[in-house]
Amino acid sequence: MHRRATMPNTNTIALDAMGGDQAPAMVVVGADTALKRYPGTKFLLFGDFTKCVKLLGRFPNLSETTEVIHTEETVSAEAKPSTALRRGQKTSMWLAINSVANGRADAVVSAGNTGALMAMSKLILKTLPGISRPAIAGIVPTRRSESVFLDLGANIDCGPENLVEFSFMGAILARAVLGVVRPTVGLLNVGAEEFKGKNELREVASTLSAADSFFEFLGFVEGDDLTAGTTDVVVTDGFTGNVALKAVEGVAQAYSDFLRRSLSSSFTARLGAFLARPAFRSLSEKVDPRRHNGAMFVGLNGIAVKSHGGTDALGFSNAIGVAIDIVQQGVNERIIGELSGLNPDNRG
Amino acid sequence: MHRRATMPNTNTIALDAMGGDQAPAMVVVGADTALKRYPGTKFLLFGDFTKCVKLLGRFPNLSETTEVIHTEETVSAEAKPSTALRRGQKTSMWLAINSVANGRADAVVSAGNTGALMAMSKLILKTLPGISRPAIAGIVPTRRSESVFLDLGANIDCGPENLVEFSFMGAILARAVLGVVRPTVGLLNVGAEEFKGKNELREVASTLSAADSFFEFLGFVEGDDLTAGTTDVVVTDGFTGNVALKAVEGVAQAYSDFLRRSLSSSFTARLGAFLARPAFRSLSEKVDPRRHNGAMFVGLNGIAVKSHGGTDALGFSNAIGVAIDIVQQGVNERIIGELSGLNPDNRG
Repeated sequence: MHRRATMPNTNTIALDAMGGDQAPAMVVVGADTALKRYPGTKFLLFGDFTKCVKLLGRFPNLSETTEVIHTEETVSAEAKPSTALRRGQKTSMWLAINSVANGRADAVVSAGNTGALMAMSKLILKTLPGISRPAIAGIVPTRRSESVFLDLGANIDCGPENLVEFSFMGAILARAVLGVVRPTVGLLNVGAEEFKGKNELREVASTLSAADSFFEFLGFVEGDDLTAGTTDVVVTDGFTGNVALKAVEGVAQAYSDFLRRSLSSSFTARLGAFLARPAFRSLSEKVDPRRHNGAMFVGLNGIAVKSHGGTDALGFSNAIGVAIDIVQQGVNERIIGELSGLNPDNRG
Repeated sequence: MHRRATMPNTNTIALDAMGGDQAPAMVVVGADTALKRYPGTKFLLFGDFTKCVKLLGRFPNLSETTEVIHTEETVSAEAKPSTALRRGQKTSMWLAINSVANGRADAVVSAGNTGALMAMSKLILKTLPGISRPAIAGIVPTRRSESVFLDLGANIDCGPENLVEFSFMGAILARAVLGVVRPTVGLLNVGAEEFKGKNELREVASTLSAADSFFEFLGFVEGDDLTAGTTDVVVTDGFTGNVALKAVEGVAQAYSDFLRRSLSSSFTARLGAFLARPAFRSLSEKVDPRRHNGAMFVGLNGIAVKSHGGTDALGFSNAIGVAIDIVQQGVNERIIGELSGLNPDNRG
């Protein structure tokens, strides 16, 4: 688990009760799990009033700290971001994000449509001063521990200035969420010796090398460094990041499935698997996507966290934990501070 | 194994005896293994005469069918491609490639410096008529069986016309090497619903959809389709392909290591692992990188196959097998034929 030990808090988290395959049940159960881990948290629950209240009936502690705001509409998983923007003002997603903009909540968590959530968040929350474009950052398990990986798909084409900003934001996240005091940062590229690599990445590398910053820039890393955990932060454009993350998730899933099938193929294999089950459990936990659930939208003037749409209550509770960590660590204030220090002339 | 059943042959394969971490021993032992699988193959072995002859002494059958050509110099693993091009004319790599250009060999296999091998191959062999740029294609294990994945790093920036050519070449390889009669082709992109994806990919998709070809274009695929095996061929630019391949290899390696450590953590776990060992063996074989060794340089006017630098004799023998398959299936003749049919006006 990447969650740091936290103290009781009084943060208010807005939840989109209607986003995700198993919503609203997994949202409510997930909130109850998160409340146990982060006592004192308050929730604003945006969704169908009757359903939400009925679910809350099973959790007296959560009920006490949760306000339900009835919403009529839901953003469908298939909706285009542009359509959701035009017609989505009454949806649970929109209103949950809006509660961050108007100061009622400190952060929003949704397991709904990613594109719609990013589009609405950009429109409603706006970007932070000094940031040209927000990014999506995830926490990936590595051989060493965990790393922050961004951008996971918000920006298909990125200029050098975007990648520089991503590096700073990623390093601040690593410090806040992973608790690394002086995070190392790597820029994803192809083998420097074999081929020339991307030209624009050399420009980014020279800017980052020159910056006298709180993080340590280690230069270029390659695809396998993602799992090796060579750096605490891995920076790339949203196209490469999205493809690499999904490729990695695909292999982990395939590996688990193949092993499970092989281990039930004979009586001896099943017996062996039974005896070795603590070992398998330890592996499953390490790669369990629910433990790493919660992609952070960074660079927005407000905290928004995206949960996997297919996750369950445990996974959703971890996404809530990510949101609380980011709030408590003052990530956005740090981003503003670091980036205004980096280049004070041309920043707002 | 992706190797098709093959008949006895009289192909001549040029081997760079000095490339790779365990060269020249693994090259010679690998050639002997390949000879057993492909009886009748002849080899030209480029490297240090004394070392090669000494190694050949252990393999009488291989000695009979192998000619050793003494070379003085070796391309180092760290050499820049440009330097290797300027100063490498006396190296085992250069002379092995040259034997394909002058018709003495049907294909060349090297486990040496990838960038140098590609640069020399482009210069010596030239590109095929109708091809703007050669690509590196690999065979990746999938849940379903195996897929051809390209480009793995020859072209950092690709225009739409390159990706169209890669699609045709990949499909021809899938037919030749995987034995799929009507291969399916997918274009790597990010989630079409969530984000817009790359604009230039839509142009490629519309060209491929319009082409009345021997393969079936299935549209966009995502990172996890690589392991799922959704399509027989996955096409992308060399930057994304290199990152994704290395990311996938990194996860597979980490997964294996973590499992091995967990399974030796206690006596019961070790006993369980012992009982379940046929299951583990089946998994290890499935993901063994040696079984998928041999990246194909496609689009060149001559067959060149790159073996992993760190492979052993078994891995190298598979790279030789890939080269023989490509020769026997007439891959280059098919590429010329298909591409001249695609767009006869502007092709050579």
